[in-house]
Amino acid sequence: GVPGADEPKLLEGLARALAQECDAPLCFDSANPAALEAALAVYEGKALINSTTGEEKMLNAVLPLAAKYHAAVIGVVTDDAGVPATPEARLAVARKIVQRAADVGIPRQDVVIDCLALAVCTDSLAGRVTLDSMRLVQQELGVNLSLGASNVSFGLPDRVALNAAYLALGIARGMTAAITDPTVPELATMIRACDVLLGRDEYAMRWIKAYRAAQKKG
Amino acid sequence: GVPGADEPKLLEGLARALAQECDAPLCFDSANPAALEAALAVYEGKALINSTTGEEKMLNAVLPLAAKYHAAVIGVVTDDAGVPATPEARLAVARKIVQRAADVGIPRQDVVIDCLALAVCTDSLAGRVTLDSMRLVQQELGVNLSLGASNVSFGLPDRVALNAAYLALGIARGMTAAITDPTVPELATMIRACDVLLGRDEYAMRWIKAYRAAQKKG
Repeated sequence: GVPGADEPKLLEGLARALAQECDAPLCFDSANPAALEAALAVYEGKALINSTTGEEKMLNAVLPLAAKYHAAVIGVVTDDAGVPATPEARLAVARKIVQRAADVGIPRQDVVIDCLALAVCTDSLAGRVTLDSMRLVQQELGVNLSLGASNVSFGLPDRVALNAAYLALGIARGMTAAITDPTVPELATMIRACDVLLGRDEYAMRWIKAYRAAQKKG
Repeated sequence: GVPGADEPKLLEGLARALAQECDAPLCFDSANPAALEAALAVYEGKALINSTTGEEKMLNAVLPLAAKYHAAVIGVVTDDAGVPATPEARLAVARKIVQRAADVGIPRQDVVIDCLALAVCTDSLAGRVTLDSMRLVQQELGVNLSLGASNVSFGLPDRVALNAAYLALGIARGMTAAITDPTVPELATMIRACDVLLGRDEYAMRWIKAYRAAQKKG
């Protein structure tokens, strides 16, 4: 969101420009459904939309777009009543989003749930409630899980160490699509380590290769 | 285990000496029940015994010692058939150890289950099977969980980064009593970070204090 900008025009131009330069699938992040549609209409790859929530207004605006353009969609577990305080209540919102997506023909594998990490500096239980929500959502709904994985450390010193730890805790609870910065070495190392430890890096080949590359760079 | 040593005499002497120097409760680690009893008999604190397994011979030798000296006991999930390959089979051994401990009067809170981490370098799924076992054991039995948390990285480069990641993955699955080296800064930082993120460090006071101490030290 850029104040005063023509967001539909901006996102459409970005979608065109990035698609030319980059093979990775794009994620369009906007609270403005018109901007999302402008980008989706010109993008030729499989997009990920960030995001809908459980709010009626958002479900009605965003889910039809995802269905129309065969995009995957992130569903953030807030609804018209705000951010639910308990894991069970967040699961209930996730359940609703998954159901409403199914109603408009979006397959389960295209729904990614974001259990919403808030800062632990203002609420000591914020990190834990999110992790417990992720476990419930993963166990009942079996969907992919996203997370803005750096919000949790807001306001604290040594944020990178906290963010790296939260990545591992989230991955252990089923997080598959963190919003994180892969150019931060500590975070990239953590993700690679979790791949080794969870059987996703056979014979640790990627781990060893990355280690040798780092040694060479000095 | 020191080859050729008189292990009962050694462990008894160690128990006396350490109890004089150290306020932390001691964990006695021996495969020799006579050595365990020699140490337990002279130790005045609440001991932790490492370990029994699900083998009949071990259960019959170690559990009565734990009951007699009111010690807590680690139960490693192997049995007479070896190391079970699946999480469900490891849970079955844990269930048996907890039941047999109850039979001789050891309360549930004094049983600590070790789901046994083997090296991922020889079996890519070794880390994952252990983590999945921990989840099952924690959910069904609700006991504390121990783990030799550095075995997993044996034979790989940058073991500290792998061990730190495995600590977080284990903690997310309910590990409460890792066997790890708190003098390794990366591991101590990881444990403190997990405390913050799981709501065990209110207002992150310990995290901030440790950060300031590290800054001062330079």
